[in-house]
Amino acid sequence: MTKGQQTRREIIEKAAPLFNQKGYEGTSLSDLMGATGLQKGGIYRHFDSKEELAAAAFDYSWLKAANRRLDGIDDSANSVDRLKKMIGNFVELRSDLVPGGCPLMNTAIESDDGNPILRARARKALQSWTSRLSTIIRRGIAHGQINSAIHPQKLAQLIIATLEGALLISRLQKGRQPLHDARKHLDEYLEHNVRCKARRN
Amino acid sequence: MTKGQQTRREIIEKAAPLFNQKGYEGTSLSDLMGATGLQKGGIYRHFDSKEELAAAAFDYSWLKAANRRLDGIDDSANSVDRLKKMIGNFVELRSDLVPGGCPLMNTAIESDDGNPILRARARKALQSWTSRLSTIIRRGIAHGQINSAIHPQKLAQLIIATLEGALLISRLQKGRQPLHDARKHLDEYLEHNVRCKARRN
Repeated sequence: MTKGQQTRREIIEKAAPLFNQKGYEGTSLSDLMGATGLQKGGIYRHFDSKEELAAAAFDYSWLKAANRRLDGIDDSANSVDRLKKMIGNFVELRSDLVPGGCPLMNTAIESDDGNPILRARARKALQSWTSRLSTIIRRGIAHGQINSAIHPQKLAQLIIATLEGALLISRLQKGRQPLHDARKHLDEYLEHNVRCKARRN
Repeated sequence: MTKGQQTRREIIEKAAPLFNQKGYEGTSLSDLMGATGLQKGGIYRHFDSKEELAAAAFDYSWLKAANRRLDGIDDSANSVDRLKKMIGNFVELRSDLVPGGCPLMNTAIESDDGNPILRARARKALQSWTSRLSTIIRRGIAHGQINSAIHPQKLAQLIIATLEGALLISRLQKGRQPLHDARKHLDEYLEHNVRCKARRN
């Protein structure tokens, strides 16, 4: 890594919590200068615009969150257990993320009626998460672990929606109970409606 | 209504879509002047600060959304059917709201790490919605319509979380399918796990 690449990386790491907490509009140049210890020219030597920096910061924050959520899910051979592991990760492994909550939710909301570059980033993040879960579900159906009546993409999005919605409520109430309740609901649904009870011979 | 009250009301109505779409930070004084056709002094004669105007705009947007969601739910005598009606309203009656999506979600996210006045408003809105649904559920238990093992507040929040999360995904994808899927999931859950099957004698 060249010195320039190193500096670029450091700017992204320091800008990421700002954008994730204060949003794109709420993050000012002086916030960025304060966090990085650089002058305007020092920051914009590495990025064409605030938008480009915000997009790189989103990618950084999202990668951290996605890695956390998918941590260890391949340890289990069973697809339903993999889904349950992801749900458990989402609910439990919340420290050590970029401060400010789920970057997908934050960016989706703020860019919803505005910034198309950030919106495209959030959309792509949602697609990759949905597609990772859909693949697990599809394999589960192929291996007789998951009920064949289940629609992979719909189930993937239902899990994501329930978790993101519970996170919204948890953050507003400053308490984690809604996340634990969502996990319990999803786990029961997976056991009773998704897991294939019939053994294949 | 005095002329002053009338003007105040008009400012709120015109500011509400701006704050709901662009957020508190993203809405500038010139946006507000453009939407209301008033100068700075004309706006701030009626409000002490941008924050006070944003709070009034939130209340206005939220009242419209809450009325839509609760529309006609008292028509049914059965508590489970009331919950299903609210869920149907949330999914179907999305036109005619203040543009920019759910004011609760928008304000919760943006104020999450910042503005305490707006955060308190969003928190109160969530509490009143939760409490309205919890009351329906509690009455359903008392009348033998809802399974007595159900925890009223937890079920209320699970419904809200699932709907808000599905709305987030719907808006990001610019398609309503995740909302319809969430409704189907919740309706099935209410029928199979919440509705009391045993008739009381």
